[in-house]
Amino acid sequence: MHATDGAARLGQCETPHGAVQTPAFMPVGTQGAVKAALHRDVADAGAEMILGNTYHLYLRPGDELIARRGGLHRFIGWERPILTDSGGFQVFSLASRCVVTEEGAAFQSHIDGSRHRFTPEHTVDVQARLGSDIAMVFDECLGYPATHEDAAGSMRRSVRWAARCRTRLQELRSSSGAVTVTNPGQAQFGIIQGGVFQDLRAESVDATVALGFEGYAIGGLSVGEPVEVMYDVVGATARRLPEDQPRYLMGAGTPEDLVECVAQGIDLFDCVLPTRNARNGQLFTSQGRINIKNARYAEDERPPDPACSCYTCRHHSRAYLRHLHLSGEMTGGALNTLHNLAFYLDTMRRIRHAIMFGAFDTFRQEFIRSVSRLSLDS
Amino acid sequence: MHATDGAARLGQCETPHGAVQTPAFMPVGTQGAVKAALHRDVADAGAEMILGNTYHLYLRPGDELIARRGGLHRFIGWERPILTDSGGFQVFSLASRCVVTEEGAAFQSHIDGSRHRFTPEHTVDVQARLGSDIAMVFDECLGYPATHEDAAGSMRRSVRWAARCRTRLQELRSSSGAVTVTNPGQAQFGIIQGGVFQDLRAESVDATVALGFEGYAIGGLSVGEPVEVMYDVVGATARRLPEDQPRYLMGAGTPEDLVECVAQGIDLFDCVLPTRNARNGQLFTSQGRINIKNARYAEDERPPDPACSCYTCRHHSRAYLRHLHLSGEMTGGALNTLHNLAFYLDTMRRIRHAIMFGAFDTFRQEFIRSVSRLSLDS
Repeated sequence: MHATDGAARLGQCETPHGAVQTPAFMPVGTQGAVKAALHRDVADAGAEMILGNTYHLYLRPGDELIARRGGLHRFIGWERPILTDSGGFQVFSLASRCVVTEEGAAFQSHIDGSRHRFTPEHTVDVQARLGSDIAMVFDECLGYPATHEDAAGSMRRSVRWAARCRTRLQELRSSSGAVTVTNPGQAQFGIIQGGVFQDLRAESVDATVALGFEGYAIGGLSVGEPVEVMYDVVGATARRLPEDQPRYLMGAGTPEDLVECVAQGIDLFDCVLPTRNARNGQLFTSQGRINIKNARYAEDERPPDPACSCYTCRHHSRAYLRHLHLSGEMTGGALNTLHNLAFYLDTMRRIRHAIMFGAFDTFRQEFIRSVSRLSLDS
Repeated sequence: MHATDGAARLGQCETPHGAVQTPAFMPVGTQGAVKAALHRDVADAGAEMILGNTYHLYLRPGDELIARRGGLHRFIGWERPILTDSGGFQVFSLASRCVVTEEGAAFQSHIDGSRHRFTPEHTVDVQARLGSDIAMVFDECLGYPATHEDAAGSMRRSVRWAARCRTRLQELRSSSGAVTVTNPGQAQFGIIQGGVFQDLRAESVDATVALGFEGYAIGGLSVGEPVEVMYDVVGATARRLPEDQPRYLMGAGTPEDLVECVAQGIDLFDCVLPTRNARNGQLFTSQGRINIKNARYAEDERPPDPACSCYTCRHHSRAYLRHLHLSGEMTGGALNTLHNLAFYLDTMRRIRHAIMFGAFDTFRQEFIRSVSRLSLDS
């Protein structure tokens, strides 16, 4: 930890492919590419780590193929750190006919209907072949709302699965067997579950931390619960996690979420919002969100965000971006993506500066006030 | 003219937005963007001029809107030269219910079915509002095959329309009236028609050149006629055109077409092939074309073209590009587009060097032999 400011933490996460300055936001590169962006532009925007998706890459092109090609970094040509999720979330949300037992999950591919089975051990093997710098344990993802009983049962199963994941990784570390391990320095993060119930979150933290991972994620949030509930759960959970290890809030969130959850002690984020919303014409700016298809921008010569210095804002007007969006030009999606990533990554940079100078709370208040301004435009 | 080598010409085309080294290839930016590419990457690949489409931009966002925003260059944020076609080809091929009379063409928008009318004078006005550096006259585009009689009638109508276009432009030049002229230095090119009939092409050249344009295009080719016929018509037509003015072959073509038609005395080209085929997974290389979805590339670690130094070839493998294409990732289309544009523009650079050193014929023979190699792969 380089510095703290309240619960907010400034730090660095070391990986075999270099260090990541935290708090950090990871653009989502589901299938080995951040949608509508080139790696160069993702890196230039300031991304130090991207996220890959185990479920998607396992199905296509296949983890065995990627291992033969030397691992995911080499296959996709991205030299900086990569984190892979375990595929649990996609198995439960995207695959069809998913059947979960204590052993694992059976499901059919959303691509071709082929049948597959993920056990905790299997997802560790897949991620070992991918060779990400940070692998996630396989966990069960519960919807919202869920009863205390369901959340407890699901969380405890996730803990048992986490234990199996940890055991499997230790086996791979001590003996290279049938599995090609393309990144021997791969770290493994546990995932805290328990829904919105603080007692279950506490139990999950204690049981998961006892297994001894290199870092911890908070899963099962940003799934429909009120945002204040999310912040409370994040805060209480983060406080209970080890101080000297990275804390990763999975799948969140809005720019406001990033700032509020850094305030609760989170170090790592990932979210599809900046990239997905870009392709749908929604731009995040220092003055709030704008929907570029809105008629009010038809002749608006201002850049998306006058305070932004990204390629899109330096070269193009809202009027042009609106025209590209309405015309269905992929270039519009690419330009919007560049901007939204720049805005997210620039926000993280400003967060880190604010913590460094002990001014995080001031920054946070001004940021929240500023980005709320245009939200009615959506 | 800086140099000639046989009929091939090395030159420079001056425009209000700078000079274009010829022979040159213009990437197609139909709606104000080269599909799947950022302007920066189009320029970095070596494009000195891009093409915009009068029909599309007239319909959306509208030439009046673009004029209010200061013209097309400013609206789209591209500072180098732009050529606009007259919209004729799209009116005849893309719009619905097109009715042509001596006065002009009536048609319905392919976007919303709204009714419109293009006269030669109107397309001059639209292009004056767009403010391209080179505007094209409105011509009638005949399909292939056509009878000598049909081709003659259509060509003569195009000549009459060309005269009306020229007269209208002279009016705009001498008095700014109701039309906002956003680029007073705009040049206007005539278009030679006449199908595959050499006598009609000759008549078209003589009548069109008599009208006194700043340059001449050859239209109505690359529409289905055998490639040898095209080269013959191009050669005979080019020889009859003024030596000291640019010659532009519209809508062609393959890499082989570029080289063969430079050999016939052509200076300017545009074609959707490099960009459209890129999005469909076809890559142009120094060894011929490859279809990236082909199973043989599943684990091929080579770049698309080992002889190419573009971003895509420096960073990515055929295996990765195949994966992106099969996964429907826009990033794949963008990377393929970058490469194909680089290949086309690099080919033009090599053509210019070969002419400069009086080695064009040697270059041409080696190029044709080389790019024919993999063509069976398609």
